[in-house]
Amino acid sequence: MTDIMSTGNRLVVETVKLHQKKYRNQTGLFLLEGYKPIEEACNTGIEIKTVFVNEEEKEKYNFLNKDEKIKEKIKTVNAAVMKKLSTTDTPPEAVAVCAQRQYTLSDIKGFNKIAVLENIKDAGNLGTIIRSAAAFGIEGLVLCGDCIDVYNPKVVRSAAGNLFKIPLVYISSVEELKTVTDKTTYIATVVNHSDAVAPEKIDFTKPFVLLLGSEADGLSQKAIEMSDIKTNIKISDKVESLNLSIAASILFYIAGMQN
Amino acid sequence: MTDIMSTGNRLVVETVKLHQKKYRNQTGLFLLEGYKPIEEACNTGIEIKTVFVNEEEKEKYNFLNKDEKIKEKIKTVNAAVMKKLSTTDTPPEAVAVCAQRQYTLSDIKGFNKIAVLENIKDAGNLGTIIRSAAAFGIEGLVLCGDCIDVYNPKVVRSAAGNLFKIPLVYISSVEELKTVTDKTTYIATVVNHSDAVAPEKIDFTKPFVLLLGSEADGLSQKAIEMSDIKTNIKISDKVESLNLSIAASILFYIAGMQN
Repeated sequence: MTDIMSTGNRLVVETVKLHQKKYRNQTGLFLLEGYKPIEEACNTGIEIKTVFVNEEEKEKYNFLNKDEKIKEKIKTVNAAVMKKLSTTDTPPEAVAVCAQRQYTLSDIKGFNKIAVLENIKDAGNLGTIIRSAAAFGIEGLVLCGDCIDVYNPKVVRSAAGNLFKIPLVYISSVEELKTVTDKTTYIATVVNHSDAVAPEKIDFTKPFVLLLGSEADGLSQKAIEMSDIKTNIKISDKVESLNLSIAASILFYIAGMQN
Repeated sequence: MTDIMSTGNRLVVETVKLHQKKYRNQTGLFLLEGYKPIEEACNTGIEIKTVFVNEEEKEKYNFLNKDEKIKEKIKTVNAAVMKKLSTTDTPPEAVAVCAQRQYTLSDIKGFNKIAVLENIKDAGNLGTIIRSAAAFGIEGLVLCGDCIDVYNPKVVRSAAGNLFKIPLVYISSVEELKTVTDKTTYIATVVNHSDAVAPEKIDFTKPFVLLLGSEADGLSQKAIEMSDIKTNIKISDKVESLNLSIAASILFYIAGMQN
């Protein structure tokens, strides 16, 4: 028997609202779509409120039944309901409603490897940066200023199941960072700065805060001024700039290489 | 006076067909959307067949009038026609119909820095890889096996104006590469291979062909077997894999660093 067969079902209508940032903020909830992100959420103890599973795929989600608390939150649905719940053209087998995790600067106080993204708007870039940060041992990510919501479905997708492996903190201005630690080296990524050094010349074995700006605007003047070191990834004169997630990941890799 | 005001105009209807790979292949044409890619095409001598410019933005495209041959190919259109021509939700100011450039292996014969992508399907990844390859001095890119069409609008967009800075060659099997040069070191990127060395341990100052597989399947057995060196980007045990464009760009950066 299928639990929900109507796209007009109240729980479905409420869930679809979470496609919008406004409702995610109001409720503190967000959506996970597909097997890997849902499995990952279970493994890392993310609170799951409801899991909608396509009735034809429910065998695959038997692992959810192991947890008595999650088991009773499973709702089987038909293809039409799944299409309604999903944000992608090709709907996944399952969509889960989960509770957001909120972190503050005090959660990453004393961390040795912190990356800061200022005014980042591109969802795909943010998701990919989260994935690379987790891959290369960055311990905390700070989103500063006017940034995209990390629970945006496209960020969640691009993070490819790594969203919960690293604390993400939102702050409004770079100056707040100084409360985290004062023994850290602040490294600003800047293009065309006369003092900029190549990343491989930097000592990443000491605690650092690595700052990156948006592709369009770069870092704010404030962020550049508060930095001890400026770095720049050298590229061909023929090319205007790198994709932000590429620049960030190269820096994370070089920082990780030194360990 | 606006040249074209109807979405039913024959030239518009023919141009919209180029949203599909089938028609791009049949005609040898493709679309460029927006200022930067069109400017870039002009600068690199890509043959432009028609440029549709939103009537309200035509001042910005005055640079096109400098070339007498392009000048007569400009068609001003209204917003409705531009929306029809474009593949994006937010239509650009201009869309150009251009002739594809076809390269073969003989065009990159003797090149010292070649990257090969096997069975790459993701448009965003391919575009970003083209951008990074041009940024870090890769001289030729080879697309091997079942790959996405490089003139797909999403690839063109992700390449961010760098599509024409590097020759792109399509081949059906990695074995064809051996005709390019025999004095080259073949380097395969493989995950979990016992002989794999870190990329920074490889001598990239000698001629190389760097092989990368798809995110889902990795390289083919053939590609691995024909390689002299296996490399792997070390990541945290907590993370399953890197995004392909990230892995490729890190390798390109490390190869470029040695010059």
